[in-house]
Amino acid sequence: MEGVDHLAHERDKAQFDVNDMKIVWAGSREAFEVSDRMARLVANDPAFRKDNRVHLTRKELFKNTLRKAAYAWKRIIELKLTEEEAGRLRFFVDEPAYTDLHWGMFVPFLKGQGTEEQLRKWLPLAYKMQIIGCYAQTELGHGSNVQGLETTATFDPKTDEFVIHSPTLTSSKWWPGGLGKASTHAVVFARLITNGRDYGVHGFIVQIRSLDDHSVLPGITIGDIGMKFGNGAYNTMDNGVMHFDHVRIPRDQLLMRFSQVTKEGKYVQSDVPRQLVYGTMVYVRKTIVIDASNALSRAVCIATRYSAVRRQFGSQDGVETQVINYKTQQSRLFPLLASAYAFRFVGEWLQWLYTDVTKRLATNDFSTLPEAHACTAGLKSITTAATADGIEECRKLCGGHGYLCSSGLPELFAVYVPACTYEGDNVVLLLQVARFLVKTVSQLVSWKKPVGTTAYMGRLQHLMESTCKVQKSEDWLNPSIVLEVFEARSARMSVECAKRLSKFTNQEEGFQELSPSLVEAAVAHCQLIIVSKFIEKLQGDIPGQGVKEQLQKLCSIYALYTLHKHLGDFLSTSTITPKQGSLADDQLRSLYSQVRPNAIALVDAFNYTDHYLGSILGRYDGNVYPNLYNEAWKDPMNESSVPDGYHEYIKPMLKQQLRNSRL
Amino acid sequence: MEGVDHLAHERDKAQFDVNDMKIVWAGSREAFEVSDRMARLVANDPAFRKDNRVHLTRKELFKNTLRKAAYAWKRIIELKLTEEEAGRLRFFVDEPAYTDLHWGMFVPFLKGQGTEEQLRKWLPLAYKMQIIGCYAQTELGHGSNVQGLETTATFDPKTDEFVIHSPTLTSSKWWPGGLGKASTHAVVFARLITNGRDYGVHGFIVQIRSLDDHSVLPGITIGDIGMKFGNGAYNTMDNGVMHFDHVRIPRDQLLMRFSQVTKEGKYVQSDVPRQLVYGTMVYVRKTIVIDASNALSRAVCIATRYSAVRRQFGSQDGVETQVINYKTQQSRLFPLLASAYAFRFVGEWLQWLYTDVTKRLATNDFSTLPEAHACTAGLKSITTAATADGIEECRKLCGGHGYLCSSGLPELFAVYVPACTYEGDNVVLLLQVARFLVKTVSQLVSWKKPVGTTAYMGRLQHLMESTCKVQKSEDWLNPSIVLEVFEARSARMSVECAKRLSKFTNQEEGFQELSPSLVEAAVAHCQLIIVSKFIEKLQGDIPGQGVKEQLQKLCSIYALYTLHKHLGDFLSTSTITPKQGSLADDQLRSLYSQVRPNAIALVDAFNYTDHYLGSILGRYDGNVYPNLYNEAWKDPMNESSVPDGYHEYIKPMLKQQLRNSRL
Repeated sequence: MEGVDHLAHERDKAQFDVNDMKIVWAGSREAFEVSDRMARLVANDPAFRKDNRVHLTRKELFKNTLRKAAYAWKRIIELKLTEEEAGRLRFFVDEPAYTDLHWGMFVPFLKGQGTEEQLRKWLPLAYKMQIIGCYAQTELGHGSNVQGLETTATFDPKTDEFVIHSPTLTSSKWWPGGLGKASTHAVVFARLITNGRDYGVHGFIVQIRSLDDHSVLPGITIGDIGMKFGNGAYNTMDNGVMHFDHVRIPRDQLLMRFSQVTKEGKYVQSDVPRQLVYGTMVYVRKTIVIDASNALSRAVCIATRYSAVRRQFGSQDGVETQVINYKTQQSRLFPLLASAYAFRFVGEWLQWLYTDVTKRLATNDFSTLPEAHACTAGLKSITTAATADGIEECRKLCGGHGYLCSSGLPELFAVYVPACTYEGDNVVLLLQVARFLVKTVSQLVSWKKPVGTTAYMGRLQHLMESTCKVQKSEDWLNPSIVLEVFEARSARMSVECAKRLSKFTNQEEGFQELSPSLVEAAVAHCQLIIVSKFIEKLQGDIPGQGVKEQLQKLCSIYALYTLHKHLGDFLSTSTITPKQGSLADDQLRSLYSQVRPNAIALVDAFNYTDHYLGSILGRYDGNVYPNLYNEAWKDPMNESSVPDGYHEYIKPMLKQQLRNSRL
Repeated sequence: MEGVDHLAHERDKAQFDVNDMKIVWAGSREAFEVSDRMARLVANDPAFRKDNRVHLTRKELFKNTLRKAAYAWKRIIELKLTEEEAGRLRFFVDEPAYTDLHWGMFVPFLKGQGTEEQLRKWLPLAYKMQIIGCYAQTELGHGSNVQGLETTATFDPKTDEFVIHSPTLTSSKWWPGGLGKASTHAVVFARLITNGRDYGVHGFIVQIRSLDDHSVLPGITIGDIGMKFGNGAYNTMDNGVMHFDHVRIPRDQLLMRFSQVTKEGKYVQSDVPRQLVYGTMVYVRKTIVIDASNALSRAVCIATRYSAVRRQFGSQDGVETQVINYKTQQSRLFPLLASAYAFRFVGEWLQWLYTDVTKRLATNDFSTLPEAHACTAGLKSITTAATADGIEECRKLCGGHGYLCSSGLPELFAVYVPACTYEGDNVVLLLQVARFLVKTVSQLVSWKKPVGTTAYMGRLQHLMESTCKVQKSEDWLNPSIVLEVFEARSARMSVECAKRLSKFTNQEEGFQELSPSLVEAAVAHCQLIIVSKFIEKLQGDIPGQGVKEQLQKLCSIYALYTLHKHLGDFLSTSTITPKQGSLADDQLRSLYSQVRPNAIALVDAFNYTDHYLGSILGRYDGNVYPNLYNEAWKDPMNESSVPDGYHEYIKPMLKQQLRNSRL
């Protein structure tokens, strides 16, 4: 049976050209080709094997990651890969490593906060990996609230140095990836103090390990913070703890693009607008949204393929029914499939937004910044939350076997969930969005016209009064009807919040009191963004036989599923009637049936190699059971039939001789 | 600071007697005392240490579990513990082991399905652990659909034996706990075939390993199925795979209480009613619901205590605000606290139901069985689903530190989630509930009066027409109003499903098509049960200063939070108005404020030792940060400052000498 495609009959059913869909998913033909080439390069190289991760001890695991990172870098140099290619290669290696922080945080942050002179000194070292950098912000007692960090950097004009110090236990740096064992340098965030005055948190470049022998430098204590959630997963990363005891660094290691300290200890703001910092933030969050679509699509690919393989109940001609044919399975799985595509396209749009913001910043146009800041915060929050939940739902959709590490889903979940917390806790971010929404509503009476994703608020009068025009279930396929319903729901929820807030004499107290409702209004706004960007995408040219039709169905599924899930919002704001809600459910069921024959091809379009998926349940060829069976025997537990411990702990019990045993 | 209680100020705030609440939580003073004694016994015995689990390899982990199981058994014998005490001791050891299956499945199943003669032979062996038993039902290709199992047991009259055989790869037994390494015997489920006819799936006692040297018996292949989700967690268990090649067992190892095969190969049903099987099912599901309240309360205890320790933002007098004071934190945490109590009381009621069903069965009264079967199926489903999600929510509520294994939450999640799949997949079970509900509705016109948890359906006319009487937010504290609203919502959803089903000519097709809505109707019914049993509990006598008042608040929180979460149901069935929904939210926020000062005492009432909690974040004394810090240094990664692998994989990179390295 080697080489047989057990899912061929599923692939034959597809009503669209899967190769064209692959291009759409990748973003462009060029992006597809680079991705495809790098994925194969990694998959075909045994040095990148990852199926043994769950059997390694933490130290073995970490050493193996060091090996892969070095090997990947070697290949990048040997093959003269471009920056894009190198990024994709690291992506497909699929193992969290210190290099993620070096390339993803240390280098971008240097670029964003360093002066020309500082960049000339540090960037070449970082680009060649002659130094390894990490990003040391969070502390044992301080996460979300960056302004609450305790580490101090006190300027000493006598020696022209900053003294970095951890005044308390809770001020220990805690969590930075790559810090524990690998990094030689760190961007350290500390309160800048000069002339007895605290100027708040700033970034400093601090060398933390010797470049000769990698020993930790004097005055610094560094360790690994220990095991984290899951098998493999983030345990390949050396998240670290660091404590400073009056460590001195030269004055010019304060990152000085936005503010400097003179030799005399005078704090001087530069004329570079501080708003430029937000550019980096938009960039990082864009990446997180795209990562969400990667992680969710991966889980969906596994669950969809295995749902076509697995059969339970409903015997026909002696063969049970494929579980993917059950409406309950479809109603849980297909909305996640649709979400994966939806997040993809909103990520693509964020890419555009980042370019747009960058361009504007270059001309000192900061007008769109607050809106861009709010919408990226909100999208980060709802895509990561939905992805974390979605991966676990996919695991459950695989039945018991999803619980085996060989399904790939436990590790995918464990490695993904921190995204809900890092780079801004999801609820904290939604509260920021809510603040922006309430402000937008309150400014509508003034001259200020809402921009970007809040532009619909400009039609508030209309949206407060409009009634949904759906009369039959097909009406729910009309994008303009769907869009207006999402706009009306969001507008009404924001207005309601603003109205209730206005009854409080102390606005801040009101904001705290109503925060659960404010979070829901923020979610409604962000879901509208996702729906509207999916619809916008479909208004453009999308080549490929049947491709656009499939995406239209997925767009409708995403919208109507979201409507169903948040039906309370739509009904309590009288945006739709109960009857219209019921018609949406009817349409949704019909869409599930329409997507069913295309399901396998729609996940094939992600173009994931079996290596990247890392899942026996999600194998491309669907040949699940023999491989699950064979995989089991590879477990070290099966090296002997009688287990280690039998003589000491089982035999005496069976023989009733426990009393005399020393256990 | 050793011995200081950092949460003392929180405990002082409580408005009720925590010792009395402990009795309520435990169920009775006797139950509390047994639990308390066993918890301390385990916590004070270093042999039961569990904080090192995450650092052990799978084989070390398993061997350590064998040691603990033998040691626990030794202590049980030495201390002459009662069955109840032994059960609690195993519970507090808190490590999945083969003994769980031996005592929790093998023994009860023997008791339920064996004849008097079989019990006389096998039970004493099992009770003394002279044999170790497991429960071999699921197969590689067959889980939920027990009737689809492929293993055969063909009777051979020539030798008076059954021949147990695995005809295919997918018929391999797969998943049974304790099978992989520890068990000597198994109850094996196989299709009974005699005289060429297949009589369906029956249970057989099969010896699988030698009692002399533990070697696997001829014709049988057994292995461990490999690593499962999480660190520690279920990897302490030897879930196994087993394949039979024509293995012969004596005829009398068919479990023969309900049906026998004669020497001549004739299949004979006994006159013992088959419905007795359901008694066991009610028992097992009752246990699962109580386990849900255990697991959820444990996660809630950790998250609540740490929420009182952790501070972020909102600096007052230079000290940040405890995160438990934020309404967003309360609105996520307190409903879970309320759910833990709600599940506790519904579990207590299931205990009564089990006794009631058992009594009735003894007198051949099967009238309440279908209802008991449906309600236990539904409660199993919604309590396990809410608990799995709730544990992960608690982890997120702890911010980044919840991701560390030392928080205890990752392992708690990983070890808990299979409950959503085992003993009936949650969605499959809800569909069974829905089937029962639809049947109940359709029989209302006939003479058949709905019983037990469906009794409210007898007032259908009233419930279809009633309107909710809430006019101000305090009205939502009225239990009879809340109850009627939940009854009306559930009744209306069931009736709507029945109405829509009746339009299908093929009922089964209709059921499949409408299954997502049917699942929602089943959820509504089960939530009603939980609310009503909580209310019933509060109608009884509950001693202790302030205890009942606190429980009333938690009951209201559970009900109103559920109402908010499923607002779409209540609005689309016109059970309440949008305005009433909004009043419920107002009341909910007020309840959160009222519970706030009692939160720590309400989790103290679970009476969990620090050993059982296994969480630095959840420490009773709240002294989190120094202990997190110290714990980190115990990780083997910190044995050396320069990591293993530096010379091979980091140094050559930093020194630009990778080209010549062999990686």
